[in-house]
Amino acid sequence: MNYQEESIKLHFANKGKLSIASKVKVETKEELSLAYSPGVAGPCLEIAKDKSKVYDLTWRANLVAVISDGTAVLGLGDIGPEAALPVMEGKCILLKEFGGVDAVPIVLNTKDTEEIIKTIINIAPSFSGINLEDISAPRCFEIEERLQEALDIPVFHDDQHGTAIVCLAALINTGKVLNKDITKMKVVINGAGAAAVAVSKLLNEYGFENILMLDTKGVISKDRDDLNPSKVKLLEYTNKENLNGDLSVAVQGRDIFIGLSAANVLTQDMVRSMGKDSVIIAMANPNPEIMPNLAKEAGARIVATGRSDFPNQVNNVLGFPGIFRGLLDKKVKKVDMAIKLKAAKAIASLVESPTEEMVIPSPFDKRVAKVVADSI
Amino acid sequence: MNYQEESIKLHFANKGKLSIASKVKVETKEELSLAYSPGVAGPCLEIAKDKSKVYDLTWRANLVAVISDGTAVLGLGDIGPEAALPVMEGKCILLKEFGGVDAVPIVLNTKDTEEIIKTIINIAPSFSGINLEDISAPRCFEIEERLQEALDIPVFHDDQHGTAIVCLAALINTGKVLNKDITKMKVVINGAGAAAVAVSKLLNEYGFENILMLDTKGVISKDRDDLNPSKVKLLEYTNKENLNGDLSVAVQGRDIFIGLSAANVLTQDMVRSMGKDSVIIAMANPNPEIMPNLAKEAGARIVATGRSDFPNQVNNVLGFPGIFRGLLDKKVKKVDMAIKLKAAKAIASLVESPTEEMVIPSPFDKRVAKVVADSI
Repeated sequence: MNYQEESIKLHFANKGKLSIASKVKVETKEELSLAYSPGVAGPCLEIAKDKSKVYDLTWRANLVAVISDGTAVLGLGDIGPEAALPVMEGKCILLKEFGGVDAVPIVLNTKDTEEIIKTIINIAPSFSGINLEDISAPRCFEIEERLQEALDIPVFHDDQHGTAIVCLAALINTGKVLNKDITKMKVVINGAGAAAVAVSKLLNEYGFENILMLDTKGVISKDRDDLNPSKVKLLEYTNKENLNGDLSVAVQGRDIFIGLSAANVLTQDMVRSMGKDSVIIAMANPNPEIMPNLAKEAGARIVATGRSDFPNQVNNVLGFPGIFRGLLDKKVKKVDMAIKLKAAKAIASLVESPTEEMVIPSPFDKRVAKVVADSI
Repeated sequence: MNYQEESIKLHFANKGKLSIASKVKVETKEELSLAYSPGVAGPCLEIAKDKSKVYDLTWRANLVAVISDGTAVLGLGDIGPEAALPVMEGKCILLKEFGGVDAVPIVLNTKDTEEIIKTIINIAPSFSGINLEDISAPRCFEIEERLQEALDIPVFHDDQHGTAIVCLAALINTGKVLNKDITKMKVVINGAGAAAVAVSKLLNEYGFENILMLDTKGVISKDRDDLNPSKVKLLEYTNKENLNGDLSVAVQGRDIFIGLSAANVLTQDMVRSMGKDSVIIAMANPNPEIMPNLAKEAGARIVATGRSDFPNQVNNVLGFPGIFRGLLDKKVKKVDMAIKLKAAKAIASLVESPTEEMVIPSPFDKRVAKVVADSI
């Protein structure tokens, strides 16, 4: 099946994927008088007296905004806000179908950091949570951080933290399969974009002791004079041995390869140079850093990708619906490291007997969202 | 029934009135691959190539934002964005139920004109129309005007134009009942807020020759030195005789009283001083400028109010759902005077044989939205 062509037909036939539904009837004078004027003055006045009642008396109770400026959409890059809308709608139906969370896509007519922050602050009283999506690095770091400071609702950049949470879940179960302490395993992360940075931070927080990161110019080390401030910060916990070199050097003797980079950059020779029982989490989309059969052939023990047609799909849908369900239910105002670690452990816990072919639950495992929500 | 108390219970039981529904299924790998990654890259790339495809391939095709800063909500005034949300949700379900239009409430964390304009421009790529709601005058005039200049989607301030359209529809049928040319009848409009100004403009456009307007200080005339620029502009087509005085003076010998002011300001003596066959459209909410039975007793021939418990309910729901249905269906980019006049005539046309007790269709007349949409 040509997924893209079929998807165009599906979107055309339905004019997109979302619609608005009414939870109350307005078919009689009385119903109209309760849902709208004059009765609606009742809930308005209740909220005017006590703002927190907005969580009891309006749909905001269960509502998240999925916000993008369209600068880093899928693997397609900066395609603009209109073209990003089908992805944002998709995210919203996943929030609804998997987490029971109502979500509205908002795409922005600006790429300016200050304007994005100001705009989101201005519309925030409409929502109980903000899911940032497909905003390019490094702007996404500042936008998320400053919004979380300014707002009393949770702000979550799924490309960063959702990916990190699901990746860590896969690694936790990898440890069980290999019967090893994963925190002692040597990790190389190829990529230094938003998701890669978040993965490195969460792994560090979990206790991983040896992490190397690479951008397109090679290993991120103290010897580099071309690093931006956010990359310099990575050196606080990565590359303690101060290694230098390209990916072929960096992977030698490593246990875990995590790819958030580009198709086919990991060769079979590189996999052969890694440690015994090597683990490959190749998340480039749609084509991974190495195809699973090639990685296995070269000696990798466990392989995960972002794809649904191979085992071990590292899919963010395992994370964000349950995370937002939990944040809303428990009225949590901020997503901190503890929440991310708990979510990763919760996802991992759903694979009762992990195997090489199953270190992560299926995206369609309906138990996941509830267990993640309960973990928060 | 205590509508406010019952309404609080209804809102509490349902956590508001709106929810998000999915138009496509995501229960299998294949469905997920079409609604989301990897298939969704198809519609994204189509829109990236040709932005206008956003109207074919996303829910934006049928989507309007209902936007308020919470400064002029119902008769309650500046109650803030959170407390305004129940009204905005109500507006959205009416758009859906009567016009089949999907609508999302956005309440704003700012009252600053420039920030409101900038924020709405920044989120505009998410929507195909903007319904401004309950934004206080005179800011609402500038906000609407500048947004309509800046955006290529229709911007409609319902408090102004919706009220004006439905009011004109009632007057058109009033002319039929009285067998008079309404444009020759003398009008007094009590109120000079957003709705009153819009009513005066639309009546002038329709051809009314004699209009007087009053604010809280009395008749708006050239002799006043306390008028803001938007009130000065009203003198271009109102009060050509340069009358002065309070409401009791202004109504003398007038044929039509239009109230957009406050409860009980029109006395029976004032009605008695009006011309024969006088017409009273008393739209103050929830209590009109004069109760219908008192107006009739004092000699008024036709009385309309905003209330559902009396005949002749001047209810905006007769206008905005059909207007947005038509704007979206016909991809109209701007709501001009011609559209407003056509909508008013369309609404009026649905009362086949107008009587004193029925100069306007019932808000539940399901034909209205379609006929209004078709008129555009």
